[in-house]
Amino acid sequence: MFHHIKELQYNAKPSKPDPVYAKKLQEVLGGQYGEMTVMMQYLFQGWNCRGDQKYKDMILDIGTEEIAHVEMITTMIAQLLDGAPAKEQDEAAKDPVVEAALGGMNPQHIIVSGLGATPTDSTGYPWNSRYTISSGNLLADFRANLNAESQGRLQVVRLYESTTDPGVRDMLSFLIARDTMHQNQWIAAIEELEQNQKAIVPSTFPQENEKQQVSYSFMNFSKGEESAQGRWANGPSYDGQGNFEYVANPEAMGQVPFLKPSPAYIHGTPPTGNLPPNTNSSTFDKEAGT
Amino acid sequence: MFHHIKELQYNAKPSKPDPVYAKKLQEVLGGQYGEMTVMMQYLFQGWNCRGDQKYKDMILDIGTEEIAHVEMITTMIAQLLDGAPAKEQDEAAKDPVVEAALGGMNPQHIIVSGLGATPTDSTGYPWNSRYTISSGNLLADFRANLNAESQGRLQVVRLYESTTDPGVRDMLSFLIARDTMHQNQWIAAIEELEQNQKAIVPSTFPQENEKQQVSYSFMNFSKGEESAQGRWANGPSYDGQGNFEYVANPEAMGQVPFLKPSPAYIHGTPPTGNLPPNTNSSTFDKEAGT
Amino acid sequence: MFHHIKELQYNAKPSKPDPVYAKKLQEVLGGQYGEMTVMMQYLFQGWNCRGDQKYKDMILDIGTEEIAHVEMITTMIAQLLDGAPAKEQDEAAKDPVVEAALGGMNPQHIIVSGLGATPTDSTGYPWNSRYTISSGNLLADFRANLNAESQGRLQVVRLYESTTDPGVRDMLSFLIARDTMHQNQWIAAIEELEQNQKAIVPSTFPQENEKQQVSYSFMNFSKGEESAQGRWANGPSYDGQGNFEYVANPEAMGQVPFLKPSPAYIHGTPPTGNLPPNTNSSTFDKEAGT
Amino acid sequence: MFHHIKELQYNAKPSKPDPVYAKKLQEVLGGQYGEMTVMMQYLFQGWNCRGDQKYKDMILDIGTEEIAHVEMITTMIAQLLDGAPAKEQDEAAKDPVVEAALGGMNPQHIIVSGLGATPTDSTGYPWNSRYTISSGNLLADFRANLNAESQGRLQVVRLYESTTDPGVRDMLSFLIARDTMHQNQWIAAIEELEQNQKAIVPSTFPQENEKQQVSYSFMNFSKGEESAQGRWANGPSYDGQGNFEYVANPEAMGQVPFLKPSPAYIHGTPPTGNLPPNTNSSTFDKEAGT
Amino acid sequence: MFHHIKELQYNAKPSKPDPVYAKKLQEVLGGQYGEMTVMMQYLFQGWNCRGDQKYKDMILDIGTEEIAHVEMITTMIAQLLDGAPAKEQDEAAKDPVVEAALGGMNPQHIIVSGLGATPTDSTGYPWNSRYTISSGNLLADFRANLNAESQGRLQVVRLYESTTDPGVRDMLSFLIARDTMHQNQWIAAIEELEQNQKAIVPSTFPQENEKQQVSYSFMNFSKGEESAQGRWANGPSYDGQGNFEYVANPEAMGQVPFLKPSPAYIHGTPPTGNLPPNTNSSTFDKEAGT
Amino acid sequence: MFHHIKELQYNAKPSKPDPVYAKKLQEVLGGQYGEMTVMMQYLFQGWNCRGDQKYKDMILDIGTEEIAHVEMITTMIAQLLDGAPAKEQDEAAKDPVVEAALGGMNPQHIIVSGLGATPTDSTGYPWNSRYTISSGNLLADFRANLNAESQGRLQVVRLYESTTDPGVRDMLSFLIARDTMHQNQWIAAIEELEQNQKAIVPSTFPQENEKQQVSYSFMNFSKGEESAQGRWANGPSYDGQGNFEYVANPEAMGQVPFLKPSPAYIHGTPPTGNLPPNTNSSTFDKEAGT
Repeated sequence: MFHHIKELQYNAKPSKPDPVYAKKLQEVLGGQYGEMTVMMQYLFQGWNCRGDQKYKDMILDIGTEEIAHVEMITTMIAQLLDGAPAKEQDEAAKDPVVEAALGGMNPQHIIVSGLGATPTDSTGYPWNSRYTISSGNLLADFRANLNAESQGRLQVVRLYESTTDPGVRDMLSFLIARDTMHQNQWIAAIEELEQNQKAIVPSTFPQENEKQQVSYSFMNFSKGEESAQGRWANGPSYDGQGNFEYVANPEAMGQVPFLKPSPAYIHGTPPTGNLPPNTNSSTFDKEAGT
Repeated sequence: MFHHIKELQYNAKPSKPDPVYAKKLQEVLGGQYGEMTVMMQYLFQGWNCRGDQKYKDMILDIGTEEIAHVEMITTMIAQLLDGAPAKEQDEAAKDPVVEAALGGMNPQHIIVSGLGATPTDSTGYPWNSRYTISSGNLLADFRANLNAESQGRLQVVRLYESTTDPGVRDMLSFLIARDTMHQNQWIAAIEELEQNQKAIVPSTFPQENEKQQVSYSFMNFSKGEESAQGRWANGPSYDGQGNFEYVANPEAMGQVPFLKPSPAYIHGTPPTGNLPPNTNSSTFDKEAGT
Repeated sequence: MFHHIKELQYNAKPSKPDPVYAKKLQEVLGGQYGEMTVMMQYLFQGWNCRGDQKYKDMILDIGTEEIAHVEMITTMIAQLLDGAPAKEQDEAAKDPVVEAALGGMNPQHIIVSGLGATPTDSTGYPWNSRYTISSGNLLADFRANLNAESQGRLQVVRLYESTTDPGVRDMLSFLIARDTMHQNQWIAAIEELEQNQKAIVPSTFPQENEKQQVSYSFMNFSKGEESAQGRWANGPSYDGQGNFEYVANPEAMGQVPFLKPSPAYIHGTPPTGNLPPNTNSSTFDKEAGT
Repeated sequence: MFHHIKELQYNAKPSKPDPVYAKKLQEVLGGQYGEMTVMMQYLFQGWNCRGDQKYKDMILDIGTEEIAHVEMITTMIAQLLDGAPAKEQDEAAKDPVVEAALGGMNPQHIIVSGLGATPTDSTGYPWNSRYTISSGNLLADFRANLNAESQGRLQVVRLYESTTDPGVRDMLSFLIARDTMHQNQWIAAIEELEQNQKAIVPSTFPQENEKQQVSYSFMNFSKGEESAQGRWANGPSYDGQGNFEYVANPEAMGQVPFLKPSPAYIHGTPPTGNLPPNTNSSTFDKEAGT
Repeated sequence: MFHHIKELQYNAKPSKPDPVYAKKLQEVLGGQYGEMTVMMQYLFQGWNCRGDQKYKDMILDIGTEEIAHVEMITTMIAQLLDGAPAKEQDEAAKDPVVEAALGGMNPQHIIVSGLGATPTDSTGYPWNSRYTISSGNLLADFRANLNAESQGRLQVVRLYESTTDPGVRDMLSFLIARDTMHQNQWIAAIEELEQNQKAIVPSTFPQENEKQQVSYSFMNFSKGEESAQGRWANGPSYDGQGNFEYVANPEAMGQVPFLKPSPAYIHGTPPTGNLPPNTNSSTFDKEAGT
Repeated sequence: MFHHIKELQYNAKPSKPDPVYAKKLQEVLGGQYGEMTVMMQYLFQGWNCRGDQKYKDMILDIGTEEIAHVEMITTMIAQLLDGAPAKEQDEAAKDPVVEAALGGMNPQHIIVSGLGATPTDSTGYPWNSRYTISSGNLLADFRANLNAESQGRLQVVRLYESTTDPGVRDMLSFLIARDTMHQNQWIAAIEELEQNQKAIVPSTFPQENEKQQVSYSFMNFSKGEESAQGRWANGPSYDGQGNFEYVANPEAMGQVPFLKPSPAYIHGTPPTGNLPPNTNSSTFDKEAGT
């Protein structure tokens, strides 16, 4: 259950309206890596958590904080929109700066939301839940979280440098600092989990069941070998189970695929009879005697 | 530019048809973390790469390999669908096993694709490019890649254990091994980049511009303090710039938000006059004298 | 800002696992009218609210409650999934009931979320924010809210009657009761607003600017006049400004549309010259002398 | 079955081209509450109608009218696009007004549709059918319809005030008047249905099956009690079955959720053993002896 | 403007309910190539038409017919759903055939639409307008239409053969016949247009502006030359302007791409200095002296 | 399996940056008919191909070429973005041309992709796989391919004429030429297939099973008969099986639809009893005695 505190977690006070910037700021509200994404991702990971209570609690703490971040940015955007040009713009529109501003706004900020923030990104594309993941494996999910905080902080930094409004920058400096913490936090949690299991997700799959001869091979699928210079092509692997190998000319290991003609009820295009050799004995025949 | 080699990278030969399993296998073809995602993510990261050529080359090598993985799974699904029940099912449908199979299939595998794989996930939801990221910052993107390979390997392992078909398992054991390599690879590349910059993305944002007093604080937004037990709440931070701090009762630091009534052309609901104290001098007035 | 309370608002304890029902229950979690929708709709309406504080507070109170509903249903679904069939299903699959259950499950509940709830509806379609509205006009939005609670309660009732599990029914009986309250609440709030303005949204548009001769006409666009029997075709209108009129044979009042051939850079299909009479004097010519 | 009449229902004649306005006008064509939404919503409600014929007929009459509204707006947009800047813009682009216009256009109006309207909203987002509802319960659906006409009229009014073109305003004044009628119509139909059943949808669910002690409680989930001032917190409820009650400090009524560790085939993160007290006797044990 | 005729264009009377088939039949209602697609595609092409009136009229005639097809299938699906299993299924569910049926149904047909058709495809994915095209070039669009009718008839035929219900087959035989007509119709219209212009869309682009040395080359991007056997690799081209040529080993004609490091405000990953030769004189320098 | 060649298929070198044009060019990269669409469509058609090997090979050859086209356009867009305005734009923004450019850019090109191309269209809408089709019937799919190349070439031509940059035009002239070839190619392949089967897809459905009396009728669903003038209304049909017939006043051939009231568990709106005559003997009774 949740309670609402009327004060914002941190100030969200622009120095002046800026409806064009409001459109851009939507990216970190309702974009792929915006605050809605981490809010919903953490809440679902927490609610679905089947691991230790300390993880469930930690994840829900940060998830609850992210609702407050969504609240801050929403509030900020609504105030930035206070300056949207009014009706009967014909006079103003002869001023190219005003016209340019109108061109740069999201029209839905007037027509649909009436000077309110929308749960969309900076192109107006609606947020959807496929931006989130809750897999049931905490190491996998903490890597998703570290990625989300990395992409998110990168975007907020770019937005910080796209404005000179001291009020907007003040709020963004808070979000950037929290993202600093959250990247640190997920790195810490990842290290803790990796110490209890191996680095490869999932750590519980028996190694003998994977095709081990290709488990540490970097395969060069192009002419030229610049890709041989990296750490990924030399030295021990990070799971401590092998050594990286650089395969300059990887060979195909599989069959030339051949699909049986479709049965009549599919109404496909029947082959004219030029089948490849041995294809009358089908894949299935050879493999399993079906 | 690209060339096609007719042989598959590895065998894709099921032992027998299994159209219900074909539906499930779609998840790692066209799902959020399926092979289409890593294929497109790596190709776009490579094409957009503004870093060292060795990174561009490495990313495109693995992107090119992933096209081959899409090819393998597509080929496998098409063969698994060879056993889809034929037309005029009325007799067969009295057999509950056949009827159950029909219920478990994706109907589009017959109606739309005519026994072919579809670029969708296991619920039939189409793949879309918001599953991918290419941010222009390699450390951020390599974390995205490590996450994608972690989620992807987890899903393939679950699918491996959902079948006993030796042909399917053979192919999946190859994909699992490649995911082992690719997780190792991204860990290696991440470490290499972190050695050249700090662990926090982006590393180039001046620390004095963030709100440093909250950069290392874990905030407990719930009753109870199980979340205090983790590495994220104690000890030095991972960027080497501070120490984690556990804030048991985080305080709100921001204003009670107040939005100005909307102008007439918005046709909103006007307030009846019970404004909070001091709101006739608006946010903007107080902050910037506008 | 928000705080999390570890206890659920109400019990979410199934009597036994039921993974097929878990799939259905997703509808009221992540569907068009599920709890995620009202949660996000109310939160955004509250944060964007430019009306009286009592409305802002009221909307955020209910929005905060809805987060708790999302939490309850997520928790319930995760427990219903405890009974998902395990790996190596081949033996069990010969039992048609088990096979049927597998066919009726959402495969992502195993492959993607690892026995966790997903932010999707009962077909696996992801939640998206176009399910919500925050328009800046409270009367319009409260009608959206009344609709959402009406559709939502209807769906929960249907789900209640699709199970006999007493634990599931207990939780749903709570949600149904809250939906009873919430429908009542929005009816009350709508009445209050309608008393301060007219019933037609927006009430502030000057009536003389609309085409008043069609403001109260029910137009019959079919043969047969069953539609004449309703309240909408007789008596005073509900805004108190007119009387309903039944137009049995509505006439077209507009022009036969004609579009100018496209300019060359569009590379359209040029007309061969058989223009309708008078079209060389185009619409624009007649209207504005362009 | 349907017939087409070549005349428009009402005039759609702009006074001059305005491609930037054409982009905005798309909102009420293909947006969430545009004419395509009500057209498809009413048609599906009518075709699916299992209630009295007079309702089926009425719904299909208005659905048929809405096709004509889609036709009018499409025609209007195509004409507004006649003024899109031509190829070889380099000279013109030095004129900032022209450049601004180009920036404010939807580029697909040239590249994709060749100066035609598109079935999308004002950000270019395609219309989709999740904007509509046909639930099988007419009272629920008429509330959806009243909401759609309220949001729709609000948006058309905002668009009316964003232009001074007399031809555009003439068409919009017609649409606004029809929305006046349609709001009146749905209010009338709702009242008629509410007189035959209770106000709470669905009216047929036995009241004893809901958790009646919370059916009329307004719960205050925040500090401060501004929300106590509304009609929703005092007096008799609107279904005539109870009295509103204001709960200033709602208590959690549910369990602290605990999920069982996932089985091995899920490859989740196993708990380290610090289970909460009594959790070895799981939820299911307590409830149903499983 | 449109009128509704209460009779269906053709009978839609199933012989018995079949809710599992209802799910499948959704594909040709709300799928990628369902009747909603052709309905909306033709209506928008007609309304946007800038060519001869005979084309505009013809397109709108068929668009109007397609509304009737949507109506027929919707009506059929609603009746097929009459047999959906009722509440309190526990007894019935012990019958595996009933359980299988439940697994094969779309759960939204009960929970959301209350035994009504939904504007979605057979996986429950909502219809969206990106399925349609109206380009302003009739030859391009008629090819889109021919494709849509080809895919559509193929799907209806597969559905015809998936049932033995004589009432369903009767309706589908009508739709198949209309698709026969509509394929013929678009072939006829295409031929007519091709006689007035060249076969390549758009026919108005000056041939000297394209890179003519590759305008008729089939390029073999794989080992092996099976693709040399087709008509596309030999003989005169279909636009009468050249001869097909088979290029067994196509050479790359472009540069090795090199992107400039991003400016500081992007916060990308700076290259370490190992630039390829000559890259300090950038692309732009060489081309345009910028 | 695939190999990457580091050289582009053709040059992608703009003469100068142009971030506004970069936004437009996205249409033919990630739009409905962009290069990603044909790339994925051809690859899936090839991998799923159950027809002659020469078709499979041919389709995969062109699919492989399309990957190279995606690569070229991506590279071009990244370079066009080199000119995006830098941070701290306040000074520049006073220049209306700069401000206009900012308004015309896709903000995600800075915030999200850091001056890289995105897999989206010109409005920022993400590419999704429902843009593609692989049906199992080659004639149907080749018509889809011909349409895609027609729409694609039309869009590239429009983009060619929207710029004067000689480097951009050079690349586009290559793509236009390849689209010339590809339209020719699909026309050739279609003709080859039509010679082996009939022109109507699918050719294998028995003609006696369709409702032949409407297989060649053009139905006029409007007042006025302009649509009678086309080839589709006169002369022999293109499948050689009939003659086109113009039906000036098509009659309804179906029933007035009537749906049974929904069962109680649906909680619909019960009819008040005014049923149409004979409806107590339901459709099902009359048809099949069920």
